[in-house]
Amino acid sequence: MKLAMIGLGKMGINLTENLIRNGNKVVAFDLSDGARNDASTLGAQVKDSLQEAVETLSAPRIVWVMLPAGDPTNQTIDTLSEILDENDIVIDGGNSFYKDSLQHNKILTAKNIKFFDVGTSGGMSGANRDGNFMIGGDDEKAFEYIEPIFKGIAQTDGYLYTGKAGSGHYLKMVHNGIEYGMMQAIAEGFDVLEHSQFYYDNEAVANVWEHGSVIRGWLMELTQSAFSKDPKLDEIKGVMHSSGEGKWTLDEALKLQVPTPVIAASLMMRYRSLEDDTFTGKVVAALRNEFGGHAVDSKN
Amino acid sequence: MKLAMIGLGKMGINLTENLIRNGNKVVAFDLSDGARNDASTLGAQVKDSLQEAVETLSAPRIVWVMLPAGDPTNQTIDTLSEILDENDIVIDGGNSFYKDSLQHNKILTAKNIKFFDVGTSGGMSGANRDGNFMIGGDDEKAFEYIEPIFKGIAQTDGYLYTGKAGSGHYLKMVHNGIEYGMMQAIAEGFDVLEHSQFYYDNEAVANVWEHGSVIRGWLMELTQSAFSKDPKLDEIKGVMHSSGEGKWTLDEALKLQVPTPVIAASLMMRYRSLEDDTFTGKVVAALRNEFGGHAVDSKN
Repeated sequence: MKLAMIGLGKMGINLTENLIRNGNKVVAFDLSDGARNDASTLGAQVKDSLQEAVETLSAPRIVWVMLPAGDPTNQTIDTLSEILDENDIVIDGGNSFYKDSLQHNKILTAKNIKFFDVGTSGGMSGANRDGNFMIGGDDEKAFEYIEPIFKGIAQTDGYLYTGKAGSGHYLKMVHNGIEYGMMQAIAEGFDVLEHSQFYYDNEAVANVWEHGSVIRGWLMELTQSAFSKDPKLDEIKGVMHSSGEGKWTLDEALKLQVPTPVIAASLMMRYRSLEDDTFTGKVVAALRNEFGGHAVDSKN
Repeated sequence: MKLAMIGLGKMGINLTENLIRNGNKVVAFDLSDGARNDASTLGAQVKDSLQEAVETLSAPRIVWVMLPAGDPTNQTIDTLSEILDENDIVIDGGNSFYKDSLQHNKILTAKNIKFFDVGTSGGMSGANRDGNFMIGGDDEKAFEYIEPIFKGIAQTDGYLYTGKAGSGHYLKMVHNGIEYGMMQAIAEGFDVLEHSQFYYDNEAVANVWEHGSVIRGWLMELTQSAFSKDPKLDEIKGVMHSSGEGKWTLDEALKLQVPTPVIAASLMMRYRSLEDDTFTGKVVAALRNEFGGHAVDSKN
């Protein structure tokens, strides 16, 4: 099929390659000259504006938005709601918050433009080949129209139509919440090993766990890959950034009153890692000093 | 090679089948007549006592103990220390606490009997085929002697000699601690989905996550399998038993002062699940009533 890819970052450029490899024609746009050149090299038809990219397509036009969540995606979808026609199709493959996707659906549906919120998993390698897609959207017929695209670029059984608009990004949000917990669990285990009385070769441990253990999986493969490059991760500072999905999962769990202590603790440990020192630490140290005369560590 | 398998429960019987399939001769003993019959059917040479099983072997005798951790294993290893000879080899493939394994090593090493503490992962299916083994033991030469056994029954790359006695069971302990956290993270995610405003087919979700997502792995396969049998798990009460390894991992983390909030929370949630009501709940409800006149739920 022919579609436009808007956004040629790490994910968009790999999806473009995946789409072209699977027989689709891609019209590509990104603000960056370099990204446009990369897409051109891959065989995409590159355009200098969103407007031009859209005009290259014929009805029903399919526009895949692959931009950072928040303003870049929101603004692009607002623009698309102005320049697309009835029955055209917008796919948001980024990590939009599901409530934003509900809003995007409302804006587009008001003009009878079809909207699909697509959670994309599998990292850059998955975007490039055998990806994973969780696809929400109110119009099941329209989904069937675009289904061949996903069938091509996903791993076998690696896409799911989840029904109502918002449900795709919601599912991806929860997927990432689980991912936070799993990553933190793996990391805590290696932290215990690192401090233990025994000597373990981290890469060998990840490798044996990857081959037949209960905790085998892609995250363990990635753990092995990381240790293969840097056996003690000496070159990496343990700062754990996050891009929102874990927090949204926790927000949602709080709203629904679902106890999710592991996802919560994973997120809190990420926030903790952003600070070299904490005000909590200062307060507790001060209080121990106040009531018990316990020594405090001086700041300098 | 020829070896004795002591203990023919869920793991021992599957290991026996795996060992025989891979060309080993197995002399088997279990207290249960039924288990002995099963082993006999699989081609094992069955004996009526530990003593007889050991006497059937020739030096250096290899005895694989596959019994519940604690008393059954401890007593068997005590007995083996009496009836085995120098250079014989004891493998404890169960889930012994690593400090017990250090003690077992001391008892056996005093008599120059070689000891290996082997963490076995992969569940019953792994015990039966393509298993996963973490092997500690002071005598590397003796490990090389028994290595062909593991090479046969493990998945390719699915065994690791981890060095000093105790290190195999220690590594398996931490593996299980990670497993607790990963399982709780997966479960929390599905709990959020179950309460969400969208409808999700749990089996379809686990299936799509198994095919190309970041959180794919054996635990997700098992999640799908469980939902395929009972889509809402209506037949299962959410009581999460545990057999010690998560607690030991946390004990160890506390001893080493390694922060492991996810493993801790996973364990606490298991304990919480064992109680229909909690004293904590009563105390908090009572206090809210005391200071704010908030309603309490009556017990009956």
